[in-house]
Amino acid sequence: MSKDKQFVTEITPQGEDFSRWYIDVIKKAELMDYSPVRGCIVFRPEGYELWENIQRDLDRRFKETGHRNAYFPLFIPESFFQKEKEHVEGFNPELPWVTEAAGEKLEERLAIRPTSETMFGHMYAKWIQSYRDLPLLINQWANVVRWEKRTLPFLRTSEFLWQEGHTAHETEDEAREETMRMLTVYREFVEEFLAIPVIEGEKTPSERFAGAVNTYSIEAMMKDGKAVQAGTSHYLGTKFAVAFDIKYLDRENTLQFAHTTSWGVSTRLIGAMIMVHGDDRGLALPPKVAPTQVIMIPIGPAKTRDQVVGRVDELYADLKKAGIRVKVDDRSDVSPGWKFNEYEMRGVPLRLELGPRDMENGQVVLVSRVSGEKRIVRQENLLAEVETMLADIQRDMYEKAKKFREDNFYDVETLDEMKASMEEKRGFVLAGWCGSAACEKQVKEETGATSRNIPFEPEKKKSKCLVCGEHAEHTVVFARAY
Amino acid sequence: MSKDKQFVTEITPQGEDFSRWYIDVIKKAELMDYSPVRGCIVFRPEGYELWENIQRDLDRRFKETGHRNAYFPLFIPESFFQKEKEHVEGFNPELPWVTEAAGEKLEERLAIRPTSETMFGHMYAKWIQSYRDLPLLINQWANVVRWEKRTLPFLRTSEFLWQEGHTAHETEDEAREETMRMLTVYREFVEEFLAIPVIEGEKTPSERFAGAVNTYSIEAMMKDGKAVQAGTSHYLGTKFAVAFDIKYLDRENTLQFAHTTSWGVSTRLIGAMIMVHGDDRGLALPPKVAPTQVIMIPIGPAKTRDQVVGRVDELYADLKKAGIRVKVDDRSDVSPGWKFNEYEMRGVPLRLELGPRDMENGQVVLVSRVSGEKRIVRQENLLAEVETMLADIQRDMYEKAKKFREDNFYDVETLDEMKASMEEKRGFVLAGWCGSAACEKQVKEETGATSRNIPFEPEKKKSKCLVCGEHAEHTVVFARAY
Repeated sequence: MSKDKQFVTEITPQGEDFSRWYIDVIKKAELMDYSPVRGCIVFRPEGYELWENIQRDLDRRFKETGHRNAYFPLFIPESFFQKEKEHVEGFNPELPWVTEAAGEKLEERLAIRPTSETMFGHMYAKWIQSYRDLPLLINQWANVVRWEKRTLPFLRTSEFLWQEGHTAHETEDEAREETMRMLTVYREFVEEFLAIPVIEGEKTPSERFAGAVNTYSIEAMMKDGKAVQAGTSHYLGTKFAVAFDIKYLDRENTLQFAHTTSWGVSTRLIGAMIMVHGDDRGLALPPKVAPTQVIMIPIGPAKTRDQVVGRVDELYADLKKAGIRVKVDDRSDVSPGWKFNEYEMRGVPLRLELGPRDMENGQVVLVSRVSGEKRIVRQENLLAEVETMLADIQRDMYEKAKKFREDNFYDVETLDEMKASMEEKRGFVLAGWCGSAACEKQVKEETGATSRNIPFEPEKKKSKCLVCGEHAEHTVVFARAY
Repeated sequence: MSKDKQFVTEITPQGEDFSRWYIDVIKKAELMDYSPVRGCIVFRPEGYELWENIQRDLDRRFKETGHRNAYFPLFIPESFFQKEKEHVEGFNPELPWVTEAAGEKLEERLAIRPTSETMFGHMYAKWIQSYRDLPLLINQWANVVRWEKRTLPFLRTSEFLWQEGHTAHETEDEAREETMRMLTVYREFVEEFLAIPVIEGEKTPSERFAGAVNTYSIEAMMKDGKAVQAGTSHYLGTKFAVAFDIKYLDRENTLQFAHTTSWGVSTRLIGAMIMVHGDDRGLALPPKVAPTQVIMIPIGPAKTRDQVVGRVDELYADLKKAGIRVKVDDRSDVSPGWKFNEYEMRGVPLRLELGPRDMENGQVVLVSRVSGEKRIVRQENLLAEVETMLADIQRDMYEKAKKFREDNFYDVETLDEMKASMEEKRGFVLAGWCGSAACEKQVKEETGATSRNIPFEPEKKKSKCLVCGEHAEHTVVFARAY
């Protein structure tokens, strides 16, 4: 029992220090480790497998919407960044530069890509000649680097993994349609697969991607009330087409600039998932993304052990065969109680216990990681019961996260109200905004919160700007953000 | 018809200039394009999908042999390379260096990883404490960079994609067993999936990986008789363990250095596959790796067109549902003949033709890309017939490549014989070698061929060194290589 107790106290409670809780959990569950390179982490197998599962599901969604994968160079010549003014201003402060190679100084410095609009732009200009070459719909899974001052594992690291879609279209309408299509793909994926409810909306001009005409995002609320931008989709207009000369002969044989988009999600989704679902016992992983969905633990005294383990192994084989990601922990040198804590800490959604009495009764006990709910089920129905319970857990996790967000979402009319709200309560704030950068800046300076986005479907429409009291052009979600 | 003719002549015949043939084919089939960064290519969707298929099958094999994936940083601090003397000497001449980031000069230069033994070594030293932590079996899919002077798309590029396995073990025996296990995984994969026969063997000391105790390779013969090293597996002894202090408490509670291995294959497999199977009509892709396995082409006059296309679409749906990678080209503005050439050039293994007479007879025509063999089969048996023919093509491609290798494999006794053989004939040479670096060097200088490996199962054992005539310690395969 002392071992169990010690175990629990190793994780800082969320209420005591949420940031320490987060670091405790991701290290203890062996998702990551710090690397000797500033701001870069190692994705350990338990953490990387989350990314593999995310990739597999997202990649399927990209392919179903007509995209193909490709791979573009890591290095971007300095001159490329100069071609799009806003883009260079946005990314220059974060770039690492290769200046020497194979013992010689390079004639032109090479940036490590922070994103690849410029490289795609250069190649698209070569490949696109006529409307027949459009739309061009390419995605890339890659590592990118942004030299960040303050880093946080998964959520903000100097090197991170992501996907970046880059598409080119004949018309503005088609490009805008693509921009929204991919935002929807992201929303559906994050809600269905990661069980995280998100708010879809447009970024204000100050929060736009460097070089975009419009940036749209999905925003999620963490358990400390802060926001994580979980995905973005950009309509780039003809800005990059003009900068890189992406032109095509249209159906009337006239030369036109293409309309382009880009969109991306990254390994920060892993961090968001942890901060949305985790609790004081550790990780809690939605079944769809969990590397191990079911942990099977034989229990009972030594004399019945072989028999129990034998039956567990049979049930394991059935579940495994049906595609359930399942593991058995039949170690005899650690107690069942220790194991219960261990796999709860690691976030395994469902625990299966089988003891001698269960053997006699032809049953097993299933326990939910999140709710603690126990179901005693017949062994002959095991697969169906497991599938049902995993689906229930997936849905419950989403509903729970949604309720948390609703409970921590506040309506304010004035900056004073917002300041009071932010001081007393964690969470998101819905407020009116006149549209001026000055008012937006004042909110940030006085509350530490930034505009997250202008939601497509706000709970209500605000009529006055919370700062200046003038007519509210937009209803905006504000929050402190990672 | 003039279009068809023009089409064929765009590819330089292999016999005229094999290098030009290669570049013509990979550009025309849109597998790659040159990038604006020296020595780096863009993997276009048709080329990248080959890599995705390779990854999927290899990854399954790695996981079946107990490995898990992880992701380690792109950057490696300069001091890390200094820790293993042979390693730094081997890789220093090829490294690109990041010297500035975010507007500031870095205190320590960071190399872009050419391989990650050092970074894995550093982290393994942190993670491994006891024999209970062993074996540690991790693989990484990643981009790596080696600043090459002479580059060739897929076969040798400055940035390339690969996987690198890094494992740590209690004993030399276990580490050696792992080294050989992964060499076998590579051989089986390359032979079964890419239909390329390979020669397994050990590299001579001069061709060893920088820092390895033993390097093993699989070597393949291209259609110009040159060799491609298709995969390597290294037993690293305790060299990296000593350099990075990877120690564990053994079962007797004594501190020991771990024994480590590493092994990798890269996107050069794509180049090898093209050079082994391609012909004057273009690419020829083994069915298992082909992005499109079956291309369906409706034929016949306009009046029956709708009916034929309707039936093709039905058959398409059946094949698709069964997991065959199939496409329909029902464009009416290009001729069937043009399409035949197009998909032959792109290497699609199987063509399905359906015309009005086939409709009447309830049949389709299947045509093999490689042999040109036609099979007229019943529509109701289509799936089984397609599966059989794809399997036949896969096997035939392997057999054909194996016969080519046998026909171009020569036995020599002396350096003069070898020089004559290399001048008159393309291909590999089997010869005796005394084991001295001087004799090996002389072979290279006088013939341009390098030792490929010391095969585990040579056709015959040689008794005398081809250069000095002394006792042959080894029987070696020599060849010019990519």
